[in-house]
Amino acid sequence: MGVVTIIGAGMMGSAMAYPARANGHEVRLVGTPLDEAIIAEASRTNVHKTLKRRLPEGIRFFQIARVDEAIHGADVIIGGVSSFGVDWFKDEMLPRIPREIPLLSITKGMINTAEGDLVPFPVIYEQSLGGQGLSICAVGGPCTSYELADGDPTEICFCGRDMATLRKLRAMLETDFYHISISTDVMGVECAVALKNAYALGVTLAVGLSEKKDGHMHYNSQAALFGQSIREMRQILNLYDGKDDALYLGAGDLYVTVFGGRTRLIGSLLGKGLKIDEAMASLEGITLESVVIAKRTAEALRALTEKRVAAQADFPLLMHIDALLKGQETVNIPWRAFAKEL
Amino acid sequence: MGVVTIIGAGMMGSAMAYPARANGHEVRLVGTPLDEAIIAEASRTNVHKTLKRRLPEGIRFFQIARVDEAIHGADVIIGGVSSFGVDWFKDEMLPRIPREIPLLSITKGMINTAEGDLVPFPVIYEQSLGGQGLSICAVGGPCTSYELADGDPTEICFCGRDMATLRKLRAMLETDFYHISISTDVMGVECAVALKNAYALGVTLAVGLSEKKDGHMHYNSQAALFGQSIREMRQILNLYDGKDDALYLGAGDLYVTVFGGRTRLIGSLLGKGLKIDEAMASLEGITLESVVIAKRTAEALRALTEKRVAAQADFPLLMHIDALLKGQETVNIPWRAFAKEL
Repeated sequence: MGVVTIIGAGMMGSAMAYPARANGHEVRLVGTPLDEAIIAEASRTNVHKTLKRRLPEGIRFFQIARVDEAIHGADVIIGGVSSFGVDWFKDEMLPRIPREIPLLSITKGMINTAEGDLVPFPVIYEQSLGGQGLSICAVGGPCTSYELADGDPTEICFCGRDMATLRKLRAMLETDFYHISISTDVMGVECAVALKNAYALGVTLAVGLSEKKDGHMHYNSQAALFGQSIREMRQILNLYDGKDDALYLGAGDLYVTVFGGRTRLIGSLLGKGLKIDEAMASLEGITLESVVIAKRTAEALRALTEKRVAAQADFPLLMHIDALLKGQETVNIPWRAFAKEL
Repeated sequence: MGVVTIIGAGMMGSAMAYPARANGHEVRLVGTPLDEAIIAEASRTNVHKTLKRRLPEGIRFFQIARVDEAIHGADVIIGGVSSFGVDWFKDEMLPRIPREIPLLSITKGMINTAEGDLVPFPVIYEQSLGGQGLSICAVGGPCTSYELADGDPTEICFCGRDMATLRKLRAMLETDFYHISISTDVMGVECAVALKNAYALGVTLAVGLSEKKDGHMHYNSQAALFGQSIREMRQILNLYDGKDDALYLGAGDLYVTVFGGRTRLIGSLLGKGLKIDEAMASLEGITLESVVIAKRTAEALRALTEKRVAAQADFPLLMHIDALLKGQETVNIPWRAFAKEL
């Protein structure tokens, strides 16, 4: 058995303790400076206060001050921060991790560049290290922390540049409820699972539309937006040299994301005709990953349109989402633009 | 304005009257021999008894005995039977339709041949006419009859061999709630929208699994099956020379189909561990299109495997569905077979 150190004790980071403990590994769960109360309570009761679950027995808990001790001797580090913790993780944690320990990052997201590139977080980590060792892998695919904790059968993908490392991580973490594909298509996997956040906003516009219309759920319109989302996600994957296999992960991930959470809430409110400021007021200042990724992707596609390597017009749903998020429009889904002559 | 004659007054056939009347056409709704009571009541009250909706004003209703009168002078015939009425439509109706009137069929489904081909119904219609004229088109895509009747924004695709006819049909039937793509990829469109019925059984297995486990809905497992369904559907499309555009229709159609109806019921019961006979007992003898199409597609893939142009092993979900439907197994989803090394 090995040693699995998870840095970041939010819900998803902590949920990774379930497959790790199921494999009998020593698990060290390290809270970020924001997780102090979570670690304090879990140390005492073994209950995770935001995941609202009893954690597996035998986890060793660490506050951030003892992170070096937790890293020492680990076989893998799981980077368990949310996308808003990426800079902290890059600046404060990466330099502490010995080059021989692989990193498995659960953080979904990308930044865009002025040139229209989209750069996933694992690539940002690699760039920050200047290509100096440290094999960086990442997890993508449909997986909510609650359900991973509850042992619901889950299919995800570990991506990274080194197949040998991916196989090692799979062997360490695969269980009969956590099924792991492995792929060297980092761009495809990261792009697909980031995009599903943006497009979940799109699909759930129809939830709000139908709630406003008659209070009933309508599915023709949701299905139309779902199909258009898959079309646009595939086109974006292709633009950035992602492989089609990643699309299936993204499709599953989109499916799970439209069912709940804050992205559905905001999409539904926008679908009811609220302006973005009114919709976001319900979140009381929380920034939403789906909003960030939709804007970044739209920005990248605009840059590519200027360079004439893509055309904004091919992404009518994303462009409408972006206009909603910028407060330039209220909902007015471009249904007709989705119809094609093929 | 033109004349739209709908033969088949079931829910979907009758729902086509909404976009047709919205465009101001004369609509003639003809019941099959099974629709006698529907036509009788609608003639009197304008209410459709199974659709449970007031029909648009101005429809002319016909019992089957007067079908020739209803066909006479039509600009388009909409073939509105379910897949179980295909033989009747082919033998009794097709010969009555003058060759210059295009047919738009709403019937989803395919048959399989011993050689492993899948033949969609519009192609069967064409074959039965021996290639003698009659431009046959078909409708595919996510569209429930209730929601079409209620004006929910809907995106579907008309497919057929002749682009000029498709454009004519689109011009006649497009409205601000019924958005029409047109495509000459008959195989792709028909295959995708038939397959979604089979795979909806697959996705809803997870609904039953989670109901049985703890009564709560779990989405990781549904999402895993959804992603695997899209993967297998795409592979089948490719095998039969369907284009990828059809996949987006199929993805939207799969999304809408898992939300309700008898396919979800049967999938959920199988997912709870019931045998097929026990599950089907709840339907009191009704044959389910999704069951038929899953078996036919599995049969076709087995034939292609024997011919070494495909491999059953690439379709682990469909093969498991088929084994469930044949009563050879109870639910035991091959999660591990879905994981890939890419």
